Amino acid sequence: MTAMGFDVPGGPEVFRPQTLPVPIPSENEVLVKVAFAGVNRPDVIQRMGHYPAPPGASPIPGLEIAGEIVASGESVIPDATGQRVCALVTGGGYAEYCLAKIEHCLPVSDGLSLAEAAALPETLFTVWHNVFERGWAGEGETLLVHGGTSGIGTMAIKLGKAFGLDVIVTCGNDAKCAAAKAIGADHAINYKAADFVEEVKTITAGKGVQLVLDMVSGDYVTRNLACLAEDGRHITIAVLGGMQAELNMAQIMVKRLTLTGSTLRARPDEFKALLCDEISRTAWPLVETGKIRPEMDQVFALADVGAAHAHMEAGDHIGKIVLEVGQG
Amino acid sequence: MTAMGFDVPGGPEVFRPQTLPVPIPSENEVLVKVAFAGVNRPDVIQRMGHYPAPPGASPIPGLEIAGEIVASGESVIPDATGQRVCALVTGGGYAEYCLAKIEHCLPVSDGLSLAEAAALPETLFTVWHNVFERGWAGEGETLLVHGGTSGIGTMAIKLGKAFGLDVIVTCGNDAKCAAAKAIGADHAINYKAADFVEEVKTITAGKGVQLVLDMVSGDYVTRNLACLAEDGRHITIAVLGGMQAELNMAQIMVKRLTLTGSTLRARPDEFKALLCDEISRTAWPLVETGKIRPEMDQVFALADVGAAHAHMEAGDHIGKIVLEVGQG
Repeated sequence: MTAMGFDVPGGPEVFRPQTLPVPIPSENEVLVKVAFAGVNRPDVIQRMGHYPAPPGASPIPGLEIAGEIVASGESVIPDATGQRVCALVTGGGYAEYCLAKIEHCLPVSDGLSLAEAAALPETLFTVWHNVFERGWAGEGETLLVHGGTSGIGTMAIKLGKAFGLDVIVTCGNDAKCAAAKAIGADHAINYKAADFVEEVKTITAGKGVQLVLDMVSGDYVTRNLACLAEDGRHITIAVLGGMQAELNMAQIMVKRLTLTGSTLRARPDEFKALLCDEISRTAWPLVETGKIRPEMDQVFALADVGAAHAHMEAGDHIGKIVLEVGQG
Repeated sequence: MTAMGFDVPGGPEVFRPQTLPVPIPSENEVLVKVAFAGVNRPDVIQRMGHYPAPPGASPIPGLEIAGEIVASGESVIPDATGQRVCALVTGGGYAEYCLAKIEHCLPVSDGLSLAEAAALPETLFTVWHNVFERGWAGEGETLLVHGGTSGIGTMAIKLGKAFGLDVIVTCGNDAKCAAAKAIGADHAINYKAADFVEEVKTITAGKGVQLVLDMVSGDYVTRNLACLAEDGRHITIAVLGGMQAELNMAQIMVKRLTLTGSTLRARPDEFKALLCDEISRTAWPLVETGKIRPEMDQVFALADVGAAHAHMEAGDHIGKIVLEVGQG
C-alpha cells in the first residue's frame, strides 16, 4: 500500500510516498480501507520532529480516518467487514489502509460523507473529554475558546451550542470572527483589535466565564484566569504559545479555580474505548441526525499532504483539512 | 461580655479586652457560651491587618469555638439550649459569647473535652473539603502535606490515616519530623536537610504522590508538581511563601494534573452547612469514638491571646493552640 511518511523531520516538503505492507489486524482490531484522513496540528508537530509517535504506534502520521472495514482480527464480530466507520487511531492515517481498535470506531450512517466522518474523531474526542468530562461543563455555562476557526475551535462551538453552553471565541481577524459567528459562536473577539480579557468582562457583565479551553498557554494563562468566574475551570490542550506561565496561586485559591489539561494520543486503549462509548451515546446521535457536522475547510489528495500541512501552518483555514486517500 | 479584639492591626501586643453587648441570635442561629476557642493562622493574618473580617462577620477574631448553647433564634429546635457543641464561625470566637449557625455546629459527646472540641472545626472542615471533596482523595492514595506539625498538618495526618491514605509530611527539623511520625505520618521529610522532591521520589519508588495539600505556594508549587504522579491533584489552601508561581503548562497537560484550592471563611452559609452535614456523617463518628482526636499543643487564657499568637508565630508548636475563655 502507499502511505505518506518522511525520513527526516522538517518542513511540509519532507513528505515522501512510501510503499508499506498492508497491516494485519490483531485481536480487537479492524483493517480500514481509508477513504479520507483528517489532518491535525499534532501531525504538523510530529512532522517537525517535536512529537514522535508513541511506542507501538505507526511512524506514519494521521490520527483519524474514515473508510470501510475490510478485515478483522479475532474477537471482532464477523459482520464488521463492509461497515463504514470513522476511527481515532494512534497514527498511520495517511495511508491506503490503517488499523483501528474496533472499540475506537464509530459507525458512519448514509447521510454522513466519509470526508466529513474523517474530520470528526480527533476534535470530537478532544473537545468532549476536555470540556464535558474534565471541565464538567453544564448547561447555561459560558465557554471561552481561543482559535475559534480551528478544527478544535469550530468543534467546540458546535458541541458547546448543541449542549447548551454560551460560546465565546477569539480569532485573529474580523473575517474569522464573522465565520465563527456564522458557525454558531455567541461572541467572537478579534484578539488583535481588542483585549480579550476586557471583552469577556463586558460580554459576561463582569462575571467571567466558567470554562476556558486553551491551546495557547504561555502568557495567555494569566489572562485566561482573569476571564474566569468563581469556580471556573481552565483546560490546557496545547501549548502553542509556550509552556511557561506565571500564575497567582492566591487567585486560584480565592476564586476556587481549577486548572487541568490532557493529551489524547498517549492515553491507554481502554480509556479511549470508554470515551468512544460515551460519545456514541451522547454526541454521536446528533452527528447522525445532522445536528452536528464538522466545519470543512478543504480536501487535499493524499499525494498533496505537504500542501495540506502548509495550508494548516499558514493559519487561514476555517475548520477541518482532510486528505482524500481512496474513494470510499 | 468580654472579648479580645484590637483597635489597630499590628503585633501580638495589640490585643485589648473589650466590653461588648452579648449578641442576640437571629433565625437559625444559636448563642454559645464559649468555653474554648481555637487559634488559627488566619487570625494571625487578620491581626496583622492583611485579612479583614468578611462583610457581616464580627471584627473580633476567632473562627472556631466550643461551649454550651444558652439561647436560640427562631427555627432552632427549642431543646438545643444546654447542648455542648463546637462550631465553625465567621469570627467573634475570642469572646465569652459567640453566635453560630445551628447548621455549623457539631455535638460534643461526653468523652470529648471542650478544649479538644474547640480545636477541631477549622482544620477538620478545611482538610476534609480540600483533600476529600476538592481533591477526590481515595483509599490507597498518597498525600503530601507541608507543615506536618501545624494544626492543618496534624489533622491531615490523622484524617488521611483514618481514611486509608499514605501520608508524607515535611517539617523544618528532626524533632518535628519525629513528632509527625508519632502522630501517624508514614514518612516525614526534614526539608532543611533534604530536597523533598528527591525524597518523595524515593519514598514512592519514582511514581509520585496523588495529592499535595499546600499552604506554601511561591516557588514550592513547581517542586510540588514535580512530586505529583500522573492524574495528581495540587490543592492550595494558603500562600505563606508568596503568591506567584511559575508553572510548566505542558507538564499539567501531559501528566493530566489538576490544580485547585479554596478558602473556607468566605464561603456561603449554605455551603458550610452542607460540608458540616457531610462531616457529621463521615469524620465526626470517628471523633466521637476517639479514633480521631486533635493534636493539642497548648492552652492559653483568653487574656493571654497575645502570647498565644506569639507562640504560633514562633512556629514551634505541634498541633493546635486554644484559648480558655470560660469553664465549660
